[in-house]
Amino acid sequence: MHATDRPPTPLAPDLIARFAQIVGDKYAVTSASDIAPYLTEERNLYHGRSQLVLRPGSTAEVAAICRLASETRTALVPQGGNTGLVGGQTPHHGEVVLSLRRLDRIRDVDTRSNTMTCEAGVVLATAQARAEDADRLFPLSLGAEGSCTIGGNLSTNAGGTAALAYGVARDLALGVEVVLADGRVVNALSKLKKDNTGYDLRDLFIGAEGTLGIITAAVLKLFPRPRSVETAFVAVASPAAALKLLEISRTEAAGTLTSFELIADICVDFCIRHAHSIRAPLTPRPPWCVLMEVSSQRDDARAVIETILTRAMEDGIADDAVIAANLDQRKAFWMLREVISPVQKHEGGSIKHDVSVPVAAVPDFIAEANDAVVRLIPGARPFPFGHLGDGNIHYNVSQPVGADKDAFLARWQEVHDTVHAIVAKHGGSISAEHGIGVMKRDELPQFKDATALAVMRSLKATLDPLNILNPGKVV
Amino acid sequence: MHATDRPPTPLAPDLIARFAQIVGDKYAVTSASDIAPYLTEERNLYHGRSQLVLRPGSTAEVAAICRLASETRTALVPQGGNTGLVGGQTPHHGEVVLSLRRLDRIRDVDTRSNTMTCEAGVVLATAQARAEDADRLFPLSLGAEGSCTIGGNLSTNAGGTAALAYGVARDLALGVEVVLADGRVVNALSKLKKDNTGYDLRDLFIGAEGTLGIITAAVLKLFPRPRSVETAFVAVASPAAALKLLEISRTEAAGTLTSFELIADICVDFCIRHAHSIRAPLTPRPPWCVLMEVSSQRDDARAVIETILTRAMEDGIADDAVIAANLDQRKAFWMLREVISPVQKHEGGSIKHDVSVPVAAVPDFIAEANDAVVRLIPGARPFPFGHLGDGNIHYNVSQPVGADKDAFLARWQEVHDTVHAIVAKHGGSISAEHGIGVMKRDELPQFKDATALAVMRSLKATLDPLNILNPGKVV
Repeated sequence: MHATDRPPTPLAPDLIARFAQIVGDKYAVTSASDIAPYLTEERNLYHGRSQLVLRPGSTAEVAAICRLASETRTALVPQGGNTGLVGGQTPHHGEVVLSLRRLDRIRDVDTRSNTMTCEAGVVLATAQARAEDADRLFPLSLGAEGSCTIGGNLSTNAGGTAALAYGVARDLALGVEVVLADGRVVNALSKLKKDNTGYDLRDLFIGAEGTLGIITAAVLKLFPRPRSVETAFVAVASPAAALKLLEISRTEAAGTLTSFELIADICVDFCIRHAHSIRAPLTPRPPWCVLMEVSSQRDDARAVIETILTRAMEDGIADDAVIAANLDQRKAFWMLREVISPVQKHEGGSIKHDVSVPVAAVPDFIAEANDAVVRLIPGARPFPFGHLGDGNIHYNVSQPVGADKDAFLARWQEVHDTVHAIVAKHGGSISAEHGIGVMKRDELPQFKDATALAVMRSLKATLDPLNILNPGKVV
Repeated sequence: MHATDRPPTPLAPDLIARFAQIVGDKYAVTSASDIAPYLTEERNLYHGRSQLVLRPGSTAEVAAICRLASETRTALVPQGGNTGLVGGQTPHHGEVVLSLRRLDRIRDVDTRSNTMTCEAGVVLATAQARAEDADRLFPLSLGAEGSCTIGGNLSTNAGGTAALAYGVARDLALGVEVVLADGRVVNALSKLKKDNTGYDLRDLFIGAEGTLGIITAAVLKLFPRPRSVETAFVAVASPAAALKLLEISRTEAAGTLTSFELIADICVDFCIRHAHSIRAPLTPRPPWCVLMEVSSQRDDARAVIETILTRAMEDGIADDAVIAANLDQRKAFWMLREVISPVQKHEGGSIKHDVSVPVAAVPDFIAEANDAVVRLIPGARPFPFGHLGDGNIHYNVSQPVGADKDAFLARWQEVHDTVHAIVAKHGGSISAEHGIGVMKRDELPQFKDATALAVMRSLKATLDPLNILNPGKVV
């Protein structure tokens, strides 16, 4: 998939030199082979073009880059760990890539205020580990955590497997530092929970995919580390049964239910066949399973999860269940969850959706989407999984066995249209956690309130009047 | 206190007639005596002027009013329950008052999605009661809940006594419906927890005090009702001891600590002397006390609060404690908390602050502010209380006994300057939950990042280019 094939404007050599002077020659990447990794991404859907990757080492350097970019009307594409799934981090038209990876300092860990101030380039797993070193939890957790960065997490308002209890990235930031298109720096690195001194700029930049400003640092919330954690795979007959299990779990676990992932058996099947060392947690394999986790600051997680499972069995909602016996088994459970997305590539083309509907509507949504997709492409294999507790399903579709991959992927938009129409019917969102990027930009007007979209465009024009920040993304 | 005494531009009679036609004559208030209640507020600090109060009955009528106001460049001041504390709801310059009180429908209660869609004019207590009828909790709770409205709560991003566990108003809204200055309506009434389809407009309008758009409805989050609740007054020697009690409580109660209010003895003293039927919960009266509440979805609130208090007594942190023995006593405990603010008027003038600092800095902040205020005005009586768990202290100051009230109140800004300088030193906020309104507008540039303020001004210019929405407030 490519964005429009408008030829890039070549950068003048003296302009490259001026940008390079800001970061130093060592951090101005100009050779095609060194630039290449910044131009492609995991799914291999997008292939960008760029003559220059800048790797600034400080907020001041980011600001200087933006000032020069404004002066010369040079478009910039900010990039973190390059793990985005909607093409938002790719320079589709020869833009300069602004890599934030060298802004990797953790400026401050404040256990009294339970905050951690991270620069944009800090890798999520590094932030998690640093919090753990301070006997705290930074709860954001997602498949790409070993390479995605805090700046990218905030710019895309990442979700992940712990959002059920702790919220999405937006909910985990107290303050931000942002470089504007013209190089001015907004310092809103507040550690305060309550601050009503004016408009909420933080949430304007979070989730804006780098189109309104460049997040260079953030104050993140830390939580107490749970003292007991229990993880279980539970066999259920259907998404509707999973929903009943969710209700029981919420009641019994109160605030300690921290993950609740729905997984169709086809996902387990792909994992077992293609991922080294993954084994089925439940035999016989049920049509659906739930991966759930209870995390408590008291010593009661085991009692809580056993109460849930006992009640679910008694009520005929759960057919089988296994609680992780030790840390290794818990890791194995989560490993299965994490490889679900990558293993799909071994079964040919996969058309992916990242949608949300009201939680109660998930079973109907899945049933209707399954019907519609198979009607559209006989033999297509619906592959639904995701964060049931948030109403967020990664409704992926693998190609029919033996079909031509390219021919299948060529129907990407057609499949999207079909699935998204069902999402819209249920009052859902066509992007629950991955963002809009370029992938869904042209679809957005069909699904978004027209006035809301007009307001978005006016905000973009106000904050980035020269359209140099990630142009062509989102709006 | 008055805003600048610029004489209001009189409204032309035919313009009044055109506005009246939108809402119907019955709901276009033009007589001075009927208008009077919209012009003053509880503290009697502000006295506004207006020739016309409009009371629309629907979003469409609000939109029509905004269209006409834009066409004729007529300034509007949106108003809910008129309980704001910073003059944000007052027409200081003869603006038309746009009362949202008749938009009082609860459009939808959805127990499966745990959401409630309320129009702006729904009184907070009504929303709470409706949630309770559906066996759910809408947790926002504050002193003015019997008359403040959801629209005002969101426009000012209200906090209150349950923010510790459930967050501020911003955290309790999933979606909003907003009428823009030009009458266009943004429909963002999403019930979704996760929706990354573009910029976060919701949080732009929430907390903007009616200066960027008029919130006409919102989708609010509902929570399970707690199954057990326990409330206690705890005697402590100092704010530092209260902070230690907070740490113990957070550890032992995990997510079930729902309120944690610090109260100086002078507050209890004023309550006993001036409020009918209030009695001291602890005798002898300690120098400081904490009002805390544990709310659990299990039956363990009693066990939790007893564990906390036992540990606090053993560690020498709490000197005495009383747990409410029944519902009446719990109500009496909270009644004391609620009358703290109003009883101050019986002791003459009171200069009020609504500040937050990082939680760990609260003891130093209070000590330093006490010293500074008494040095500035010998005999002045610091009167600190508030939401310690959020770092949010209502640092009020009562006049010296027998002093002249007007002379004392004339030093409002001087006292504010003194206290706010200490707040700033600790990285705090000069408005934790009440907003900026007119009271703190001119101070804001001293405390707010200049670039952030510039961005706020550009957002205001973008969304309200004719400056007709609550002009002169916030920015």
